[in-house]
Amino acid sequence: MTYAEMPTKELYEEKARLEMQYRELCAMDLKLDMSRGKPSTEQLDLSMPMMDELSSKTPLKSRKGTDLRNYGILDGIDEAKELMAGMMGTKPENVIVYGNASLNIMFDSVCRGMIHGIFGHTPWCKLDKVKFLCPVPGYDRHFAITEFFGIEMINVPLNADGPDMDMVEELVSTDDSIKGIWCVPKYSNPTGISYSDETVKRFAALKPAAPDFRIFWDNAYCVHHLYPDKKDEILDIIDECDKAGNPDMVYEYASTSKVTFSGAGISGLATSPRNKEDIVSQLAIQTIGFDKINQLRHVKFLKNMNGIEAHMAKQAELIRPKFELIENRFEKELGGLGAGSWTTPNGGYFITYVANRGCAKEIVALAKEAGVVMTGAGAPFPYKKDPNDSVIRIAPTLPPMDELNQATTVFITCVKLATVNKLLQKVTEL
Amino acid sequence: MTYAEMPTKELYEEKARLEMQYRELCAMDLKLDMSRGKPSTEQLDLSMPMMDELSSKTPLKSRKGTDLRNYGILDGIDEAKELMAGMMGTKPENVIVYGNASLNIMFDSVCRGMIHGIFGHTPWCKLDKVKFLCPVPGYDRHFAITEFFGIEMINVPLNADGPDMDMVEELVSTDDSIKGIWCVPKYSNPTGISYSDETVKRFAALKPAAPDFRIFWDNAYCVHHLYPDKKDEILDIIDECDKAGNPDMVYEYASTSKVTFSGAGISGLATSPRNKEDIVSQLAIQTIGFDKINQLRHVKFLKNMNGIEAHMAKQAELIRPKFELIENRFEKELGGLGAGSWTTPNGGYFITYVANRGCAKEIVALAKEAGVVMTGAGAPFPYKKDPNDSVIRIAPTLPPMDELNQATTVFITCVKLATVNKLLQKVTEL
Repeated sequence: MTYAEMPTKELYEEKARLEMQYRELCAMDLKLDMSRGKPSTEQLDLSMPMMDELSSKTPLKSRKGTDLRNYGILDGIDEAKELMAGMMGTKPENVIVYGNASLNIMFDSVCRGMIHGIFGHTPWCKLDKVKFLCPVPGYDRHFAITEFFGIEMINVPLNADGPDMDMVEELVSTDDSIKGIWCVPKYSNPTGISYSDETVKRFAALKPAAPDFRIFWDNAYCVHHLYPDKKDEILDIIDECDKAGNPDMVYEYASTSKVTFSGAGISGLATSPRNKEDIVSQLAIQTIGFDKINQLRHVKFLKNMNGIEAHMAKQAELIRPKFELIENRFEKELGGLGAGSWTTPNGGYFITYVANRGCAKEIVALAKEAGVVMTGAGAPFPYKKDPNDSVIRIAPTLPPMDELNQATTVFITCVKLATVNKLLQKVTEL
Repeated sequence: MTYAEMPTKELYEEKARLEMQYRELCAMDLKLDMSRGKPSTEQLDLSMPMMDELSSKTPLKSRKGTDLRNYGILDGIDEAKELMAGMMGTKPENVIVYGNASLNIMFDSVCRGMIHGIFGHTPWCKLDKVKFLCPVPGYDRHFAITEFFGIEMINVPLNADGPDMDMVEELVSTDDSIKGIWCVPKYSNPTGISYSDETVKRFAALKPAAPDFRIFWDNAYCVHHLYPDKKDEILDIIDECDKAGNPDMVYEYASTSKVTFSGAGISGLATSPRNKEDIVSQLAIQTIGFDKINQLRHVKFLKNMNGIEAHMAKQAELIRPKFELIENRFEKELGGLGAGSWTTPNGGYFITYVANRGCAKEIVALAKEAGVVMTGAGAPFPYKKDPNDSVIRIAPTLPPMDELNQATTVFITCVKLATVNKLLQKVTEL
């Protein structure tokens, strides 16, 4: 029987039971965190051998013989381009290798559009109105960048196979103030879905009204599978755009932030030769180059896609039980209650819980009160506004299993309590 | 006897001799480079022990216990703030530690002014006119940044004790479109002069017409002394600005690019608490943080100012003979000829040769033809325009001594030849 079907009297009894449980949980004085997609200590430990790859005895030279300790090489060493290209499923010549994280690159890409304009088009800061499409739920830090630059954000529903492409096509082809769209095409943050081949092809075939429209393709979780036998794969967007006659329409991003060390990894942008030339010419003003020694360290440790896959399989061994714990408990304890639904992704860093309408803020607040920090309700939406107040991002990776188990107990109790409260509130209103 | 005093006939004979020498040099098919301020292999070797500071056995934690392998700590670890503060002669709480180089930070500072505005003032990109003062000769990459953003650059003469402060005071106090000034206050690029205490105090006491005027204080060579007994020291500009009632008027930059590895160092910005808060709030949108592991590596290797000074003394041992070689040969072979003057700095990376008016381009072209690449004539000026066509930046650090000696032979020959040619050209014109 779902909560909605439950007679009012029983619902009140359930509420009393849940409140008692909740008080008991609060009394435990927990301090748990399921808010951010951070790797656990054990995951990070897997990359510690990387710290031995370079020593004072290592010739710090690139394959071509360049001294990596000195200035030079703006777009990255060849071997690092190959590594990043492998991750993104594109060609090394499409890649610029950057510094320690990809968020900066995305910020820079938007900033260049604002300040300088793309291919000689009017800089966006000189236009009355600039808009980005934002598939929702999506990544809060993407939305923070566009909000920072005063770019208007338009929600587009994200379905199980990608954004609502009818809506994307309609908007992009008719409104030339739409300059970009944020995408996490594989194991999306936070729902964990991957774009279907048809979705990618429809992206590549867009006919934007704005000549300086770009797809911001954040392939953050490209190698982040959870199951050896269930790996989502997506089409190469750069290749598809090229085939569709839109070679310059996409900027693709990736990093090793969640492969090796978060914040001490390397990152890359992949795009068409013409875009790359445009970007590098401006990058030459901005920097003398990125940390090439850390590029070499990563190449020596990860080697190539085989190396990356073997390394990520070890990470999956650590993460998978955490996803399974949550999913199994949700199924067992929330299944059939009509208290919401959740995603069961094949990779990435997040589970999305879709609570009943109007319940998300209360669930997150209740959990916080009980010592469990969740990502803020609303965070996966532009301006932090979830129109249904229902989406909650769950980040299972950081806490150890026992803490995760406790946090899940709290979360489930809060979901039930908020759901029952909402139903009883309706009863009272009747 | 100077060339100018030489009878025309002798001048023609000198020209013939010089041309023969020059042809002989060209025939040697040299490939030498005195163009960029890059450290030599031997200098870089001094930092190789840094590569052993961290291994898979090292706890990668900050003093406070934060796991440096994970996300977090936007403004740098405390111990790295202390290190960078020591270099800049300021307090650790004034410092934000960034990534691998300081040019990016300066670019970002200007970019923030353009896009977002400072302290709520109109973003510069929304203004009809934005100007920067540029003490000349100066650093070409500074000027490239302001040119990139379409900022008008105004030349201010750089004297032996700093910029012409009468002119700076006059312009800054009367023109509210002047938003900044580029400064390399110690061992300036390229003349090697350091700002006197009076200059620094006059900077601190500026009364800018623009409330969002900032001094861009690039303290790039703060620890780059050449002589143990001749060390230029400058006043702490942040402290001086504070005392003068202008606490928020300066952004100071430094890096370890020429202390450890160029492009794989760490960098910092130092400024007032209010500026820092303003910057960090925007930085939080731009990045999740910089490479904290490399921050730890640097702290372990350099330790503190004593460690930095000992390390830089070793570098000075390698660099000083190169400066002395050039200065001694200039003195011996160009002294008394009236063919120009040169600086003899106590630190930094450059010697500036001031040729006779109208000779710099020809000297650089002749040297190039003979296989010696110099920094382009004009480079030390905004828009690459040297009004007198006389300033040439010499970067002695990169080439080994024997190559430097050869390059100096070429340079001296080219200076003489261009000078004689110029004089004879005048004779012909008479």
